[in-house]
Amino acid sequence: MERVLISESPKFIGQVIKIAGWVNVRRDHGKIIFIDIRDRSGIIQSVVIPDEKETYETAKTLKGEYSIEVEGLVKERPASAKKEDLITGGVEMEVKKIKILGKTYAELPIDISKEEMDLNLDTLLNNRVISLRNDKIKAIFKVSAEIVRSYSEFLRKEGFLEIKTPKILSSATEGGANFFKIKYFEKDAFLAQSPQFYKQSAVSFFERVFEVGPVFRAEPHFTSRHVNEFTGLDAEMGFINNFEDVMRELERTMSYVMKSVSKNCVQEIKKYNIEPPKIKNVFPRIKLTEALDILKKEFGKEISGIDIDPEGERLISEWVKKKYKSDFVFLIHYPAGTRPFYTMPSADPQFTESFDLLFRGMEIASGGQRIHDYEQLVRNIQKFKLNPNDFEDYLENFKYGMPPHGGWGLGLERIAQQILGISSIKEAILFPRDVKRLTP
Amino acid sequence: MERVLISESPKFIGQVIKIAGWVNVRRDHGKIIFIDIRDRSGIIQSVVIPDEKETYETAKTLKGEYSIEVEGLVKERPASAKKEDLITGGVEMEVKKIKILGKTYAELPIDISKEEMDLNLDTLLNNRVISLRNDKIKAIFKVSAEIVRSYSEFLRKEGFLEIKTPKILSSATEGGANFFKIKYFEKDAFLAQSPQFYKQSAVSFFERVFEVGPVFRAEPHFTSRHVNEFTGLDAEMGFINNFEDVMRELERTMSYVMKSVSKNCVQEIKKYNIEPPKIKNVFPRIKLTEALDILKKEFGKEISGIDIDPEGERLISEWVKKKYKSDFVFLIHYPAGTRPFYTMPSADPQFTESFDLLFRGMEIASGGQRIHDYEQLVRNIQKFKLNPNDFEDYLENFKYGMPPHGGWGLGLERIAQQILGISSIKEAILFPRDVKRLTP
Repeated sequence: MERVLISESPKFIGQVIKIAGWVNVRRDHGKIIFIDIRDRSGIIQSVVIPDEKETYETAKTLKGEYSIEVEGLVKERPASAKKEDLITGGVEMEVKKIKILGKTYAELPIDISKEEMDLNLDTLLNNRVISLRNDKIKAIFKVSAEIVRSYSEFLRKEGFLEIKTPKILSSATEGGANFFKIKYFEKDAFLAQSPQFYKQSAVSFFERVFEVGPVFRAEPHFTSRHVNEFTGLDAEMGFINNFEDVMRELERTMSYVMKSVSKNCVQEIKKYNIEPPKIKNVFPRIKLTEALDILKKEFGKEISGIDIDPEGERLISEWVKKKYKSDFVFLIHYPAGTRPFYTMPSADPQFTESFDLLFRGMEIASGGQRIHDYEQLVRNIQKFKLNPNDFEDYLENFKYGMPPHGGWGLGLERIAQQILGISSIKEAILFPRDVKRLTP
Repeated sequence: MERVLISESPKFIGQVIKIAGWVNVRRDHGKIIFIDIRDRSGIIQSVVIPDEKETYETAKTLKGEYSIEVEGLVKERPASAKKEDLITGGVEMEVKKIKILGKTYAELPIDISKEEMDLNLDTLLNNRVISLRNDKIKAIFKVSAEIVRSYSEFLRKEGFLEIKTPKILSSATEGGANFFKIKYFEKDAFLAQSPQFYKQSAVSFFERVFEVGPVFRAEPHFTSRHVNEFTGLDAEMGFINNFEDVMRELERTMSYVMKSVSKNCVQEIKKYNIEPPKIKNVFPRIKLTEALDILKKEFGKEISGIDIDPEGERLISEWVKKKYKSDFVFLIHYPAGTRPFYTMPSADPQFTESFDLLFRGMEIASGGQRIHDYEQLVRNIQKFKLNPNDFEDYLENFKYGMPPHGGWGLGLERIAQQILGISSIKEAILFPRDVKRLTP
């Protein structure tokens, strides 16, 4: 007999089917034993009666989280016992046979059968392989997978080619110091902080590329929005007219992703009791300097220098939400000093053709136009007090007709975090890595 | 005016359109200048005549690989000048305006406009950002992207959830020594050699998972089939009956991938003058011991011990191709000593419920059933002279009803290599990493 998924069981009323899953809860009511069986698709209530002798004896030995295979008759519940909110709320199973597939060897350290876990983050993460069995927690990763799927699908339609770039680098360039060092045979090497140089390079052969891959940041942060390893959703496109083209592509991408998640993750979003994202076809664009004026005028918040902090990002998003009914906003034209050397300067060279994309108060993407002219790039490297010789391989790309181009880097986990309104990014990563946490 | 892709130009006969791309070749024929313009979609021949004075002067300054934007009139070629084998073979462009987007600052070190590059591997890789502009080389990465796309699509249909597992690990376990060491803040850490432990763990919450991600192997190989960083296509599935279920899923997956590549990469495969893969619905399965008998009997090849070498894999694949008309073959039941400690032993415990999948003579996947019972796993760890305490986090997964499960790890680049008949795996990686090569 072929295994049937629990969510499919209502199609088999009156038939004997085989299901498999975990004992979610076992309850003994007098002589009758109730077992809620959980598989990846749902939960079904099943009933074991004493008449099925051998099966009944097995049922008595079952503990929570045993994995089992069960054959039984699918029966329609009486109208009064139907639960409308569950896919399987209209049926139950009369168990004929039980086969134990996997036993438990310890008491569960935490209770995962409740809808809300109500445990602090450290407890959840210390018991990660258990807490991930909880339905509400699992929902996060279904949303994540849908983000990756729809992101890739949309960019493919737009002519972007999926690439894989190396994560082991010979030098810690890109102007940042936040690299993890590796022992690579006889050499020192570094873990890629982003696919930036490689995706720019790829513009010169594929024009439009995207990558879904790990990003490593050796930053000693202790916040709810930083981790040291996350999944980057990068893209880069050539033959742009200006950085507006990049923003236009990114907002179309995010609109598609949000629509896909809203459509394909209805159950998951419902568990978080949150509204699906509000999407406008065009996200508002606000100059960073204007955003700072708004913060001062509307919220009495002053920030020294031309930069914005996490609180400022939250407040400006609130203001945008009220004024434009958009959950997204582009902050544009960051000052030259706050952006990497390869960022295209604006007409006023104090500023750059760059943006951050905020979603519900948090930065989820950075991007902009890059310098594509070899000589301009060399000058800018020098302006940053860096040595062009250290960028020999990178500069090689710019010697042979590099077209105007730009792109972005998105953080997968922050998108999921903001869609579901989760308080820490670590909850949106299966096995998060931070300064203190390297296990499991 | 919106840019039009070159491949779309035949739809605009009689109209002025804007295209953008690189100067593939410039030829001056008397007063007329011919420019072959290349973008990601194709190549078009364009003509500049002296009447368009300013444009003509610009055209004279163009060098190979300049990136340009061109406005011009699309004209049908006279029947005698049509080239049937090109999408744009029926048209040419009469240029009205040229805008230079990106100049070149050096002579091209290699000629990329020829169909065949005819250069040795080191030259190709040393000039990687140039050689990747060649059409035949680019084709490899279109095939790779299609493998990733179709692999993911099929597994999603089959109920597998895409996951991302950490690449930074706290310990170099899994019984192998081939880990790269990282300095992780104050601690030592290691780069993941595979997502093995995490994907098994994920079976206990998602049942079926897959991952596309980098895999790091600190093995000092110098062969045409090894690199130190590659893209793993992993999958793991729970509630299996036996390892045959895993092979069945893998062969269905590979059939889907091969059909997708054959269908969606017609032009790319054609460039390599190779037959699309021969797919049977069921791939032959041969016991490793039987394969060794065949090698001895049919090819006079003797291998000491129960194991197979690359030459043996080639020969047995030839034999299978002849006998079963299949480009794929599973070798099954590898001896216990040649497989990791977590491999499920066969009824005869000398052997294991494991397989390798060979494709056109090369191993592209390894997999099998894993031990799911906690106590059996502890015993097997001890049998391998390893210390169960070193596997505490891993073993935690097996204490709570782990169902029977198994899976595989495929290498993306080897699949692309074997589809196209490329001699080195390094050609199938944008920026390959080997013992000596860490750049660009």
